[in-house]
Amino acid sequence: MTLQRTDVFGTMRADLERVNARVAQAAEVDYPIVSTLLGDIVQAGGKRLRPLILLLAARGYEYHENLSTLITAAAGVELLHTASLIHDDTVDRAAIRRGQPTLNSMLSSGAVILIGDYLFAQSAMLAAATDSTRVVAVFAATLGDICNGQLREMFDAQRLDQTREDYERRIYGKTASLFAGAAEMGSIIGRAPEPHIAALRRFGTDLGMAFQIIDDVLDLTGGTRDLGKPAGHDLRQGTVTLPTILFLARVRADSPDWRTVDEVVSGHTTDDRQIDALVRTIRISGAIDEAVRVAEAFVASAKEAIQIVPDGETRDLLGEVAEAALHRVR
Amino acid sequence: MTLQRTDVFGTMRADLERVNARVAQAAEVDYPIVSTLLGDIVQAGGKRLRPLILLLAARGYEYHENLSTLITAAAGVELLHTASLIHDDTVDRAAIRRGQPTLNSMLSSGAVILIGDYLFAQSAMLAAATDSTRVVAVFAATLGDICNGQLREMFDAQRLDQTREDYERRIYGKTASLFAGAAEMGSIIGRAPEPHIAALRRFGTDLGMAFQIIDDVLDLTGGTRDLGKPAGHDLRQGTVTLPTILFLARVRADSPDWRTVDEVVSGHTTDDRQIDALVRTIRISGAIDEAVRVAEAFVASAKEAIQIVPDGETRDLLGEVAEAALHRVR
Repeated sequence: MTLQRTDVFGTMRADLERVNARVAQAAEVDYPIVSTLLGDIVQAGGKRLRPLILLLAARGYEYHENLSTLITAAAGVELLHTASLIHDDTVDRAAIRRGQPTLNSMLSSGAVILIGDYLFAQSAMLAAATDSTRVVAVFAATLGDICNGQLREMFDAQRLDQTREDYERRIYGKTASLFAGAAEMGSIIGRAPEPHIAALRRFGTDLGMAFQIIDDVLDLTGGTRDLGKPAGHDLRQGTVTLPTILFLARVRADSPDWRTVDEVVSGHTTDDRQIDALVRTIRISGAIDEAVRVAEAFVASAKEAIQIVPDGETRDLLGEVAEAALHRVR
Repeated sequence: MTLQRTDVFGTMRADLERVNARVAQAAEVDYPIVSTLLGDIVQAGGKRLRPLILLLAARGYEYHENLSTLITAAAGVELLHTASLIHDDTVDRAAIRRGQPTLNSMLSSGAVILIGDYLFAQSAMLAAATDSTRVVAVFAATLGDICNGQLREMFDAQRLDQTREDYERRIYGKTASLFAGAAEMGSIIGRAPEPHIAALRRFGTDLGMAFQIIDDVLDLTGGTRDLGKPAGHDLRQGTVTLPTILFLARVRADSPDWRTVDEVVSGHTTDDRQIDALVRTIRISGAIDEAVRVAEAFVASAKEAIQIVPDGETRDLLGEVAEAALHRVR
């Protein structure tokens, strides 16, 4: 696959800036300490990938006519994402996220729960402000899917008897559902025809799956992951991801490698040297390449889905976003 | 005030049962352990006061025509309440609620956060299922008000320089906003005329204020509070409520009583004998009676607001609910 650097972020910058302004406004609260902390978090906030997908999903249709509603929904999606990260960090007790200290490392867990809830409320208000019951229904269902995925991750933790289907169902909820929901909301607001809405939702789903698989690969290869997480963080947390599932499929259940994985994900081994050795073993086993190929297949499927979009430039921009999910390991 | 036992719960039982069924259905999840725990929590669930208010707010208008939507919204309101209790218990680290062990005492705080989020998602889906953008907007704004109230409670904690206005703003968010939102949603769905919607919202607000003030009184008098909380629990948590504010207004800032309150709410004193003595001092100071009179005034205002409701029986039932907020101390 060749990569055309059309620079989707450059093209969409002005509208993403408007999204940022809406996000910043929603994160304002009466309490100066919280307001400053929240401001830092929403400013630090990554690339606005989900708002970008929402905007692009409308771009081939009635985009300018509905731009103000699209900005509102995009800000809602970003805040939903931020709220869910804040709660997830509390669950994980993570100290660093997006290269910044988490709220967790600075406030009591009670305060962090309430601040996450506050952002959920703000995101729900933005969804309601679109004045579209269909958008609100997608928003609410997406929140449900995310919670389901996070509960699955918690209850699947430390179990080696997971199939690739278990894994995919889990990351669909945890990650892909919001990409899918963003694409669906954008295309609904842009008044795309029904088959186009379905295709753009599939684009979002496939892209989200690829994105999370690559995230899970980077956790083992150490690539461009967030600062502060050692390679193999997921294993240390008891989270079994695709590369590990594919690795386990290559070794026998009574082999020393299997037993090592079991000891690490069950938390019986916390010895860094042993975990580092396991990470290296998985890296050279071929399981990483296999996982990347699965992600590539999802990206190919995502790019196929958007062939229905009539505007060529928009198709290219969506394709670029899909490719970007893979760049991080290249 | 004389009390007519028209038995509002009896009159509304059949419809409240339908709300219960919707609530139970929404609390079903794939994971048996969580499903059982959640089932217990939503079954234990108090008197369904908020769903009752929502239903009654529509009863004088197009009630039967919109009953199915009313049931949906009422279930959403109850789940929002339950989700907020679950997170609040995590913030407080409470072990008992509604006479049952909290999730907190049985699961990790991470699991409790996610389960609360899951119920938020379910409640948002029910709000969306009303297919009314106006109802969804009220729902989202109410969630925002609740979070605001809870954040206020956290940031106002341990401070003695609180006015009655600070207190009222806080309990409006924490408690009254959901009573107000329930009444507003019900009257919107029942297609009440606009001035009636405004009046019913005021009814909900005033009733919610009275309800929380009485709750705060019971915390000191020990009346019918939830099991497992000693009298003076709020003081031990650093939460300054109306009876304490009224008590402080009766003593000098350099008096021993003031200093004792300061030591308890700041957490410098955790000695049970000293706290029990302070609780007794507040009880006999007259501050409790004064707080109850404030609650009575809110109930009177609530009953005044509903004089606009055309149906006499519905007015009586709403009046009975308002009186019930006070019964608990009588």
